[in-house]
Amino acid sequence: MDSVDFDALEDAARAKMPPASFAFCAAGADDEISMSENIAAWRARRLRPRVLRDLTVTDTRVTLLGKEHPSPILIAPTGRHKLFHPQGERETARGAAAANVGYVMASNANMLIEDVAAERRAAPQWFQLYYWPNRAEVEALIDRLAAAGFTALVLTVDAPTPGWSPRAARSQHQPSPDILNINMPGSPMARTAYHPDFAGKVMYPATWRELEWLARRSPIPVLVKGVLRADDAVRCAECGAQAIIVSNHGGRHLDTTVTTAAAIGEVASALAGKAEVYVDGGIRRGTDILKALALGARAVLIGRPIIWGLTVDGATGVTTVLDHLRTELVRAMQLTGTASLKEATGDLLAPN
Amino acid sequence: MDSVDFDALEDAARAKMPPASFAFCAAGADDEISMSENIAAWRARRLRPRVLRDLTVTDTRVTLLGKEHPSPILIAPTGRHKLFHPQGERETARGAAAANVGYVMASNANMLIEDVAAERRAAPQWFQLYYWPNRAEVEALIDRLAAAGFTALVLTVDAPTPGWSPRAARSQHQPSPDILNINMPGSPMARTAYHPDFAGKVMYPATWRELEWLARRSPIPVLVKGVLRADDAVRCAECGAQAIIVSNHGGRHLDTTVTTAAAIGEVASALAGKAEVYVDGGIRRGTDILKALALGARAVLIGRPIIWGLTVDGATGVTTVLDHLRTELVRAMQLTGTASLKEATGDLLAPN
Amino acid sequence: MDSVDFDALEDAARAKMPPASFAFCAAGADDEISMSENIAAWRARRLRPRVLRDLTVTDTRVTLLGKEHPSPILIAPTGRHKLFHPQGERETARGAAAANVGYVMASNANMLIEDVAAERRAAPQWFQLYYWPNRAEVEALIDRLAAAGFTALVLTVDAPTPGWSPRAARSQHQPSPDILNINMPGSPMARTAYHPDFAGKVMYPATWRELEWLARRSPIPVLVKGVLRADDAVRCAECGAQAIIVSNHGGRHLDTTVTTAAAIGEVASALAGKAEVYVDGGIRRGTDILKALALGARAVLIGRPIIWGLTVDGATGVTTVLDHLRTELVRAMQLTGTASLKEATGDLLAPN
Amino acid sequence: MDSVDFDALEDAARAKMPPASFAFCAAGADDEISMSENIAAWRARRLRPRVLRDLTVTDTRVTLLGKEHPSPILIAPTGRHKLFHPQGERETARGAAAANVGYVMASNANMLIEDVAAERRAAPQWFQLYYWPNRAEVEALIDRLAAAGFTALVLTVDAPTPGWSPRAARSQHQPSPDILNINMPGSPMARTAYHPDFAGKVMYPATWRELEWLARRSPIPVLVKGVLRADDAVRCAECGAQAIIVSNHGGRHLDTTVTTAAAIGEVASALAGKAEVYVDGGIRRGTDILKALALGARAVLIGRPIIWGLTVDGATGVTTVLDHLRTELVRAMQLTGTASLKEATGDLLAPN
Repeated sequence: MDSVDFDALEDAARAKMPPASFAFCAAGADDEISMSENIAAWRARRLRPRVLRDLTVTDTRVTLLGKEHPSPILIAPTGRHKLFHPQGERETARGAAAANVGYVMASNANMLIEDVAAERRAAPQWFQLYYWPNRAEVEALIDRLAAAGFTALVLTVDAPTPGWSPRAARSQHQPSPDILNINMPGSPMARTAYHPDFAGKVMYPATWRELEWLARRSPIPVLVKGVLRADDAVRCAECGAQAIIVSNHGGRHLDTTVTTAAAIGEVASALAGKAEVYVDGGIRRGTDILKALALGARAVLIGRPIIWGLTVDGATGVTTVLDHLRTELVRAMQLTGTASLKEATGDLLAPN
Repeated sequence: MDSVDFDALEDAARAKMPPASFAFCAAGADDEISMSENIAAWRARRLRPRVLRDLTVTDTRVTLLGKEHPSPILIAPTGRHKLFHPQGERETARGAAAANVGYVMASNANMLIEDVAAERRAAPQWFQLYYWPNRAEVEALIDRLAAAGFTALVLTVDAPTPGWSPRAARSQHQPSPDILNINMPGSPMARTAYHPDFAGKVMYPATWRELEWLARRSPIPVLVKGVLRADDAVRCAECGAQAIIVSNHGGRHLDTTVTTAAAIGEVASALAGKAEVYVDGGIRRGTDILKALALGARAVLIGRPIIWGLTVDGATGVTTVLDHLRTELVRAMQLTGTASLKEATGDLLAPN
Repeated sequence: MDSVDFDALEDAARAKMPPASFAFCAAGADDEISMSENIAAWRARRLRPRVLRDLTVTDTRVTLLGKEHPSPILIAPTGRHKLFHPQGERETARGAAAANVGYVMASNANMLIEDVAAERRAAPQWFQLYYWPNRAEVEALIDRLAAAGFTALVLTVDAPTPGWSPRAARSQHQPSPDILNINMPGSPMARTAYHPDFAGKVMYPATWRELEWLARRSPIPVLVKGVLRADDAVRCAECGAQAIIVSNHGGRHLDTTVTTAAAIGEVASALAGKAEVYVDGGIRRGTDILKALALGARAVLIGRPIIWGLTVDGATGVTTVLDHLRTELVRAMQLTGTASLKEATGDLLAPN
Repeated sequence: MDSVDFDALEDAARAKMPPASFAFCAAGADDEISMSENIAAWRARRLRPRVLRDLTVTDTRVTLLGKEHPSPILIAPTGRHKLFHPQGERETARGAAAANVGYVMASNANMLIEDVAAERRAAPQWFQLYYWPNRAEVEALIDRLAAAGFTALVLTVDAPTPGWSPRAARSQHQPSPDILNINMPGSPMARTAYHPDFAGKVMYPATWRELEWLARRSPIPVLVKGVLRADDAVRCAECGAQAIIVSNHGGRHLDTTVTTAAAIGEVASALAGKAEVYVDGGIRRGTDILKALALGARAVLIGRPIIWGLTVDGATGVTTVLDHLRTELVRAMQLTGTASLKEATGDLLAPN
């Protein structure tokens, strides 16, 4: 994997995994409009490069939740990594650590929290949480996470009930019995991601009240992921969230939402000084990252490309994807005369 | 028909009926721009989901013309159901009753009003009326409808003369002689839907005067279907219409009209407090329904998908289509934090 | 030719004529953007139909230059009809007369003015003029036209030099030696329409001065064809033009102009009360005609479809095309509640 | 090469050169969005032609940097002409001289400055400069250029580091060892245009300071190429640049920039009276040139089509391409009533 062409990488990953696993990875809700539009929306923004700037140093460092990261790139939470590599999330964490990139582990992981933590090295690890109704279980989990050195909780709020994916339904994705949601109470078998039985059931009934409780109770900072509106983002901050991740869940649950590229500006403006704001969904290029930052994001999260790298080359594949994106970000900064992320301001973009 | 994928359902229906019947069902006027654009216009609207709302209950109930319906979904009037099922509209009514969904029977039906009424159970039945010149015949028909328990008249006003469909013309659709417009005076044979002889002939010459007369004369509420402008909608209400259905007749008569998704906002604003407003045309997803409600519609009507369900699986197929749409609506509500239809307001949508 | 589907008609015409003749008919300048965009621009406008109007009469009559026409449809000037029918423009005139539609004969016609005039019956005949430098010859021509009963001169001003058509160049169109521009001084052989030798040569050097002279000198009204700007249209009227034809010459000379659908509104507003305004380019449907009228045009001119009809069925084909468009116009009027052309106002259209 | 159809010419050139050379010529950065959008953006602008203007003379002359040019067309700097013709830039200069068109020779040329100068005749020659860190070498080069009769320096500022081209990477472009960057210090071998080793390296670290120095030091006028923003353009002028070339480097380095057609207006307005402004990128038609001038450009530069002409027919091919574009410009001027370039003003274009 000398250079990274994401289309070729996805093809290689697809060739290496069972069709149903690929369908699970690639699935978007309904007509997959939001999934593909996320990508298109970043590409559709136009850059106004600056010239003749001093580029002696190109500085990609950024401080997130008080800690310096070498770049504004994070690994987005995605589930069931044993579908893609025998070592599952442990392998992903290894790749993140090698690139010194923050990794957001998913609730629906197949490896033990403590085993993933063992791969951490200098790279921060956060944990993505679905709020389920049994509060004692949630408390036990977050204490266990804090003990294992995870430094933030990412509460996902955009999927209180699962969406529906015709693509996944056609693939009849049914993980093998040894693919367990191992950190959930009782370590249940992973079921199909989209199942007709879930229709109408609110599985993760978090409201503002639960967010307030969680922010108070958690020994580590709480972030909220899945916000697309300024009003909700502000209320999340008021409830104690220290950062908001603008996300439509990669288009996997609700189709035809606004794209994250469209929403980030409104949310970032409203949150200025109140909370940090990150974004995910369809980011595939260094120029996409630079555009997200210019629109007010402090960091971006990468989802599906990490899965492709993990599938094709394990931890090395993950590291390669992350290094590649950072290389592209540096190139985009240099070609736009952007010496540091502070200079990634709105005037780098033409009006939409 | 375990799960419902409308594209697959349409394919299955097409395979099961004669090409000319399919052409009659699928036909749109001229270049079929409005027909396909209706669908595209709903899909093109972007949702701004709310998060962290209390979803203990997801309430899809709505009151239409003073009667509570379990959901805002109705069956749109479509003609000649014997082309699609031996029991014709009777079978459709059976499917509607099983789903407890209101059914708007068409003037161009092939089953007797009273036979359709016999299938009603708890689900309301309305009747779609073309105004023809002989007023005595109209009076006889509406008294008969009221006696049969129909609770609303839906006057179609967007097709005083038929449009032209190249697709239907190519198919040489000619219903068999036993397909009768059985409730019309003299029970005439159904002729081709689009016939060159009709060109220039105003077959249904209703004006404001006829609407006023009908609203006064009818023992049951009168609705007007086929309005795309605020000014006309307001005048309909002033003439006694209790609800307006924003519709372009599924794109079957006049091509290149505004889409119903484009028109609903203007009409709903103008009618606020004056009359109820419903909409049809191209609604294929729960998210489409939610968008229609957010734009001001109180209910939506479903046309062609009902025909596909009826063709493939009779009453069961009709029920499946209706249940599927309600399931999708519930999912769309939950994924946008919408606990009841009162909360389906305009801020759920990004500006167009 | 029972019904008229223009796509099928064009195919039939293409099959009946030599490829080079078809290329001459179908050619547009450069990348043929304006040619196809003319068509697309009418289709892209959206109608806001009115309902419940009194349609006892649908009146398509219109007064042009003081004379009542049965409909707002005219035949646009197109050249070299002997390429398409042995009787050339004489046959076209016959078809126009049968439909009682005004015919604008082209300068580049292959039949004698007087022979065409002989087919006139009740339908007005106008003549399209290229202004060439020899004023005496122009005077001789217009006196001859007036004597032959032509009632208007249409001065084409959008092609002082020919454009370039890669399509025509590839076809190596070279009319046979008996195809003469028979009404021009010396009856020269028709040369290729697009010829490299013409590059840079201003063959028709008319300016405002020539227009003023022509308007004064001509015993019959002078119109100007090929205007796309309000300022030029007003100046044409000030120079004596009694009507302006908004046209980009069917996209045959300058590519990437504004479409005629885009230009008509600006020109019609500016000319109100000063001169009549007509439009051509890409009109293929009754709804297109209605839209043109709603945007301020008083009449429309039809070009290529007439050639198709002429090729396939001679005068009968021409008549069929004209009758078909009038039938479609009536249908569009009835389906939009438009009882007469006076009611074809701007509010029939949604903003672009 | 009797007539010029650029699509056919590109095909012919492609057939005549090794695939890797074609990939080098055709390559754009990343997804090649800016490369293709440059072309599309000119085509998308709509002309508002004037009529009835005096076209006795069509004058394409323009004064650039105080010297009269017969037309506003220049040859853009492109590298490595020995890939396309054995005589390399010497052959290109011969073609430019025959058309009497200014030629901007590239830094990455394979022929000696003095040998190219020998072909000059009456056509101006300028030189495109990448600023490299060794100032003494730069000084030596510009003195040598002035001595050889070059009359302007064009400093490229939009590629301080190279971009990345998947197309070029796939082609494994590796020039043969005798393709030298012969005018650079040490006459190094031309390396691949896009090479992973270059990632993150700022090879041409020019800043405002270097521009100021260059403008003072150079005995000939200094231009800046690669500006897309008004603020930077103004600052270039303040630093001594006598002209600005609005360019995104043909989309070869940074993808998804604003198009040059989008940027030219803003830059031209800001520079009025301060410096001349030229533009390149995607100009393929006479109408494109006219649009560029109407938007405020004083001249345009042509890149890839010159390579196609050079490949297919050497100097003659270059001349043919240049003459063809000038012929198309004259035609566009005549068909828009534009007698001289002073009349190419903004009202020739519809708002975007």
